Amino acid sequence: MTNFSSANSAHLAAKFRPPSVDQVRVGGFFGPRIETIATTTAHTLLDRCIAAGMLDQVDPDRPNPGLRIPFQNGNDTVSTQMFWDSDFGKSIEAAAYGLLHKPDAALEARIDEIVDAYGRLQDENGYLNSWYQRIEPGKRWTNLRDCHELYNAGHLMEGAVAYYHATGKRRFLDIMARYADHIASIFGPGDGQKRGYCGHPEIELALVKLGRATGERRYLDLARFFVDERGQRPNGQHYYDREARERGRDPSDYHFATYEYSQSHIPVRDQRHVVGHAVRAAYLYSGMADVSTEFGDGSLKPALETIWGHLTDKNLYVTGGFGPSAHNEGLTFDYDLPNETAYAETCAAVALVFWASRMLGLGPDRAYADVMERALYNGALVGLSLDGTQFFYDNPLESRGKHHRWTWHRCPCCPPNIARLVASIGTYLYGEAQDEIAVHLYCDSVAELKTAGVAVRIRQETAYPVEGSVRLTLEPEHAAEFTLSLRLPGWSPQVTIRVNGEVLDPAGVEEKGYAKLTRLWQAGDHIELEFAMPVQRLYANAKVGVDQGRVALQRGPLVYCLEGVDNGEDLNALVLQPQSGFRCEVVDGIGGLPALVTTGWREKSESDHLYTLSAPQRVPTEIRAVPYHVWDNRDDGEMLVWIRAEADQ
Amino acid sequence: MTNFSSANSAHLAAKFRPPSVDQVRVGGFFGPRIETIATTTAHTLLDRCIAAGMLDQVDPDRPNPGLRIPFQNGNDTVSTQMFWDSDFGKSIEAAAYGLLHKPDAALEARIDEIVDAYGRLQDENGYLNSWYQRIEPGKRWTNLRDCHELYNAGHLMEGAVAYYHATGKRRFLDIMARYADHIASIFGPGDGQKRGYCGHPEIELALVKLGRATGERRYLDLARFFVDERGQRPNGQHYYDREARERGRDPSDYHFATYEYSQSHIPVRDQRHVVGHAVRAAYLYSGMADVSTEFGDGSLKPALETIWGHLTDKNLYVTGGFGPSAHNEGLTFDYDLPNETAYAETCAAVALVFWASRMLGLGPDRAYADVMERALYNGALVGLSLDGTQFFYDNPLESRGKHHRWTWHRCPCCPPNIARLVASIGTYLYGEAQDEIAVHLYCDSVAELKTAGVAVRIRQETAYPVEGSVRLTLEPEHAAEFTLSLRLPGWSPQVTIRVNGEVLDPAGVEEKGYAKLTRLWQAGDHIELEFAMPVQRLYANAKVGVDQGRVALQRGPLVYCLEGVDNGEDLNALVLQPQSGFRCEVVDGIGGLPALVTTGWREKSESDHLYTLSAPQRVPTEIRAVPYHVWDNRDDGEMLVWIRAEADQ
Repeated sequence: MTNFSSANSAHLAAKFRPPSVDQVRVGGFFGPRIETIATTTAHTLLDRCIAAGMLDQVDPDRPNPGLRIPFQNGNDTVSTQMFWDSDFGKSIEAAAYGLLHKPDAALEARIDEIVDAYGRLQDENGYLNSWYQRIEPGKRWTNLRDCHELYNAGHLMEGAVAYYHATGKRRFLDIMARYADHIASIFGPGDGQKRGYCGHPEIELALVKLGRATGERRYLDLARFFVDERGQRPNGQHYYDREARERGRDPSDYHFATYEYSQSHIPVRDQRHVVGHAVRAAYLYSGMADVSTEFGDGSLKPALETIWGHLTDKNLYVTGGFGPSAHNEGLTFDYDLPNETAYAETCAAVALVFWASRMLGLGPDRAYADVMERALYNGALVGLSLDGTQFFYDNPLESRGKHHRWTWHRCPCCPPNIARLVASIGTYLYGEAQDEIAVHLYCDSVAELKTAGVAVRIRQETAYPVEGSVRLTLEPEHAAEFTLSLRLPGWSPQVTIRVNGEVLDPAGVEEKGYAKLTRLWQAGDHIELEFAMPVQRLYANAKVGVDQGRVALQRGPLVYCLEGVDNGEDLNALVLQPQSGFRCEVVDGIGGLPALVTTGWREKSESDHLYTLSAPQRVPTEIRAVPYHVWDNRDDGEMLVWIRAEADQ
Repeated sequence: MTNFSSANSAHLAAKFRPPSVDQVRVGGFFGPRIETIATTTAHTLLDRCIAAGMLDQVDPDRPNPGLRIPFQNGNDTVSTQMFWDSDFGKSIEAAAYGLLHKPDAALEARIDEIVDAYGRLQDENGYLNSWYQRIEPGKRWTNLRDCHELYNAGHLMEGAVAYYHATGKRRFLDIMARYADHIASIFGPGDGQKRGYCGHPEIELALVKLGRATGERRYLDLARFFVDERGQRPNGQHYYDREARERGRDPSDYHFATYEYSQSHIPVRDQRHVVGHAVRAAYLYSGMADVSTEFGDGSLKPALETIWGHLTDKNLYVTGGFGPSAHNEGLTFDYDLPNETAYAETCAAVALVFWASRMLGLGPDRAYADVMERALYNGALVGLSLDGTQFFYDNPLESRGKHHRWTWHRCPCCPPNIARLVASIGTYLYGEAQDEIAVHLYCDSVAELKTAGVAVRIRQETAYPVEGSVRLTLEPEHAAEFTLSLRLPGWSPQVTIRVNGEVLDPAGVEEKGYAKLTRLWQAGDHIELEFAMPVQRLYANAKVGVDQGRVALQRGPLVYCLEGVDNGEDLNALVLQPQSGFRCEVVDGIGGLPALVTTGWREKSESDHLYTLSAPQRVPTEIRAVPYHVWDNRDDGEMLVWIRAEADQ
């Protein structure tokens, strides 16, 4: 039986919390992307939600739209229409971050209209779910396993917190706090309460966010309850089994076969492997990490750390995406990393950024921050077109030319997810602790932080990720002693640190991949960082058969790929030379990032038969690579991340 | 509108028919395998059929077993229990060929018992289908699209013909002839007749077989009707649409979305691409080729030849399997040939042998015979374990060690299919025409053939496929002039032909890859053939991305693979050297065939991380390959057909 108490606080380091989005003003690489989200994507998201009929479903004074999206073939309990509240919640969240960047009265009015509809929809007792109140009344709380009921609540909560931070308006926050109170009355260990938890984790991390925003501990307690209860078998029965029988259904008549799909097969503290649906997994682990941080609960660490290792050592795409399978939108088995059929849902890479960020809540550790950066700049960012209007859902690492971003998708979870991540990127750059500030990511920005009882402004000046030089300037409101921990990216083979012009040996101050500088900081103190950023070739473990004889190119945090528009057809006929160097080049239409150019070979066969005895001939050719996340922004064509490479003999 | 008439007989060459199985006695490579089928597999097949409950369903005097296998999830009109008649038909067919090889009174008695049950089940009007008569009465002919109704009839017909040839017993044949007459009364262009055709082609080729065995032309007419009617839209309506509406269902509520799945989307003469379910496709094309041959109907040739080209030029695995996708058990798009997930159903390779053999009905052409041989020795034969008791359903070209043959399968179509093919292999060796005998395949054997009005015994003495020398001895009952056409395998770079000791230049007599020897043949005439059989490396077209930088090894008709039991783990870490030679070696447990051994490299990384900057080092190592069709007969381990190979610089 699992020990629920937070017995291991002595083992925990200082508690790190991310700054709220309004504390960090971002320019540089992400600035224009936030601008695009604020001016274009936010409106697009709301347009698409409303065009789909979502406001008709939410607003109780509008005619009931009824069932618009049929129940899914083969999974007769779910319609994506059940998720509409979450689509609104995430879209409002993304739009709210946009408002922080750039006030927009029209956008704010649109959100106020939606919030008002939710306010009028909310049940007297605080319940709020447009599907169950308008489309399937009488069924609330009857199928937590499948129907995303608390998931919807979580995303609305996150939207409400963001809107509050962006505008100071409390209405949405109050609505969601009432709903959270109602949920806390329904779910819990008390008599007559349900000992259930959502089939799609999300409420856990959302309640922590709500608790942090309102200062109310009871929301943190509810988050912890959901984490602790998951996968238990009180009286020998799993909640979902019991719930199915109460619906008159056979528990084993379940489309996804086992509860690994929702990581609820065993209690979370006993789990050691990443399994099931990828986004559910990463949202759950995010919630677990948040609960661990907030309660100083070290009993969650073995699961978190081991699962993290299982994911990153054996199941992560080089782009930071994960979950190869379309069938369960998730995991299959170790080293199963096919390229052309990679599912690698955008939401999964986004969720990995969320999880990594929360692991940093336990203290700076490059193991988490490096992966956060990899997922952010590659597997997540690829989900958004440069013009902010089109989106990828699944993200292969190879394409024959027919994989393109969507204008919209019948399950539109990914667009607002990548939008809200990018628009709130400031919150991921830093961690604030009692006597320490951690710098996790580099981007031209100004942050108003707090530590050691003082306000500290930190300005970053940098052209990252195009170049690896960063100048940080500190302005504490008065001189104060604290630790500034600077991440030294694992990909950089050579790091130079200067503090106020004086060179510092990184080896002397490095801890878990961060340079920890503890001193009395004064206004005007500055640090110059130089991260060597060579073009690098990555090799995959031999157990990833499809990547053998190939390399993935990276430069700094950016993973690169070949596109047909630059290199012609049959990208698999291209071969890199063993020692060839790369030069950076300007190419239009790839967001101002450098392309990499080298000389390699193209293999040409004299035969166009399917199989032939004659080996192809090699012809020298220029090979041009662009950052993976910008692919499919120019003309149609093939794409390839893992490029054939001749071995060095 | 398609021209149905057989207007192009002037374009057709002589009509070739395969000898019946009793005309050819096979030894050599296939002899022991036929022995195994006769003594073991035939019994195993009947055991499994009966253990599944099939005889309980067929025998009207046994208690009704009811629905034993639920309707399929997602396809609520089909249960594999509907196919039981076909499983019996094919198993009886395989067993019948076994009886020809080796009389077995016990086996014969088992078949008689089953035939007797069918006889007692048969409706007065001739209808015979154990599912519709015993499990779902009142539903006959209501769902041709899904329910395999005529498919079952076809396999029972094939079984009946084989049993007749094996034993001289007419009972089963008469039963099936009565059923065929009944089907002919139900289906046809006349008033009150149904203009339907089966969703799973099979009846077409079976009716041709029945017509040839009984001499009754009306069965050939019915086969032609089904071929001609397929995909038509009389009065603008597709038969399956109309049939669905008559069942009260929406035609578009169809699990497989389009009628490409059953190659009935457009009339067959208009088709130019291989699409849909692989086995359905190849059975249909087999039936079309038979109808073309029997009626001298050249109007089917453009479709047949173009579809053949589409399959073999862009959609065929090097093993002769096809159909990469598990979802539709069939085709997806050109050059989609993934290795680890290849579906390549055993039945599909078997059906390709059937189709190729029937294309040869239009005359000898190496284009068809080479593919027939490739599919036979690799993609089909792999479906049967060396001991004859275990079976593959799907056949990847790469495995991590968890893909194994089945003892049985809930859809047991493949075991009796590969068994009946192997046990009747004699019929594929030759084609008989008016003044010509074609030799398509080489195997130690004695055949009693007929041409130019004379009986001709042909003896082949050969260790093929271990060696490429073949000695043929002819014994016409008296001297007679005819053409003997000898296939010159496309894989052989050098061919020597001696007739009665005199060397003959192949170039002078070659036509479509056959050496055509027209002369007055006398008893004792002999031909020595020497086919050079070097180890060869095949390269795949650049559009098959996963095979680039790799080769498939073949020697003669056998395609080779690496197995973990010979080479250790991580087969994708092995690299062939550019010019390395191979030696043949004896290895236990691989059916007496040669293994191929060479020196190559194993790549070893100093890191076991998932991704690393350090390139692996190469260490020389012995690499041992075995024939693909014998894999998974020894210890568990990985398997790999497309092996990495260093380019020649």
